[in-house]
Amino acid sequence: MSGERHDHIVKSFDDQLQNVSHQIARMGGMAESQLTSAIDALARRDSDLASRVVNADTGLDGLEQQVEEDVVRVLALRQPVANDLREIIAAFKIASDTERIGDYAVNVAKRVLALNQVPPVQPSHAVPRMAKLVQSIVKDTFDAYVERDADKALDVWHRDAEVDEMYTSLFRELLTYMMEDPRAITPCTHLLFIAKNIERIGDHSTNIAETIHYLVTGAYIEGGRPKGDTSSYAVVEPPEGTAGGDSGGEAGSGQS
Amino acid sequence: MSGERHDHIVKSFDDQLQNVSHQIARMGGMAESQLTSAIDALARRDSDLASRVVNADTGLDGLEQQVEEDVVRVLALRQPVANDLREIIAAFKIASDTERIGDYAVNVAKRVLALNQVPPVQPSHAVPRMAKLVQSIVKDTFDAYVERDADKALDVWHRDAEVDEMYTSLFRELLTYMMEDPRAITPCTHLLFIAKNIERIGDHSTNIAETIHYLVTGAYIEGGRPKGDTSSYAVVEPPEGTAGGDSGGEAGSGQS
Repeated sequence: MSGERHDHIVKSFDDQLQNVSHQIARMGGMAESQLTSAIDALARRDSDLASRVVNADTGLDGLEQQVEEDVVRVLALRQPVANDLREIIAAFKIASDTERIGDYAVNVAKRVLALNQVPPVQPSHAVPRMAKLVQSIVKDTFDAYVERDADKALDVWHRDAEVDEMYTSLFRELLTYMMEDPRAITPCTHLLFIAKNIERIGDHSTNIAETIHYLVTGAYIEGGRPKGDTSSYAVVEPPEGTAGGDSGGEAGSGQS
Repeated sequence: MSGERHDHIVKSFDDQLQNVSHQIARMGGMAESQLTSAIDALARRDSDLASRVVNADTGLDGLEQQVEEDVVRVLALRQPVANDLREIIAAFKIASDTERIGDYAVNVAKRVLALNQVPPVQPSHAVPRMAKLVQSIVKDTFDAYVERDADKALDVWHRDAEVDEMYTSLFRELLTYMMEDPRAITPCTHLLFIAKNIERIGDHSTNIAETIHYLVTGAYIEGGRPKGDTSSYAVVEPPEGTAGGDSGGEAGSGQS
């Protein structure tokens, strides 16, 4: 009788862990599909789709809060140790990163709505290319989570440097477009932030990859995170012959 | 004898909790001073100070990892419940948000280094004004943590809307400057991202305020988070008479 009861408790605890783990996978699926829709909305200039992404975000927020409450409940009532504790801690961290990925997808969608109010600009093609890479990284990240695959997580972790490099090159490209045509400034600024949001999604996938690696192996990934984003330091000069190149305009003459 | 031993265990557990809590306060102090230095470096165009901020970031990263390890150790060995569990969960979350605040301060400092390579532009005065507000929010957030003051946390939480509004207005102002003078595009883009980083620091302070409220009262703050940042939707038109206003430039003619 007491043996049965013990089995029951053990099973119920496993169920709780499984449940948290399924919620994370579900959040991952939602974040993936929000990102895909936001990128499609950008590529197709589809404001209806962008609006759907903006309105769908609360689902992900609600799930994150649910996971947090489940985690606290499991910690309080079950007091897990070793692998189970790692599982619970990982869920807590991944839920937070996944919710952030959803937030960034929503911000992309909001900016698509602004972009669709002005004529299209050329560099919006480069952004979906970068987005494709990040989409595949996000997909592989949640595959690695579901499969508990540390090698796949490590692979994701390494690929983020490529995203950073694409972002830095896009940053320069967009600034050059802006210098050539003032009408491109509003759309290119939104594209700049869209690209930044996508790059941040890559960063959060990298966080999740680190957490998965820790979850599966019990060890942190060694070595510093690969960094390819040097855009913070970028200085782009206006091309020769651009208006304002030597006019001493007011905006350039202030002291600070 | 066994009573003594029990006392010893209890005291040691309290020590561990206190220790985690002190580490968080220390992280808060570091993040505050990194932000202050980054903002000073911006206002004074001080590249040496900016470089110091960039190089000091590893301290905060190391402390966050330390807190995470301490939290996992306390959970595994002490299996805290009720208030103690809340304390530990809160530390875990606040450490993560604080580390992000530090990251954003570093990104501000990196962009100051880029800004200092080009002539100063006017709007850099508006950014330090917004930064001052966020600095006071960050300060009050960590005061609320140290004092376990839920009302102060709630006050911080409400003030974030003002930051968002300042950011939205700055976004429009910076875009207008860029349209008036192509030479302002590089510095204004960096200022745009600096402002965005500062706005994100406000968001993370809001997260921390929510966590403090939960820590002290056991309840989540009710109602949606106040939002004043509508910059994602902003469309700014070039002023009349700006170059490229009707030239059909290449950048504006692409299809997507």
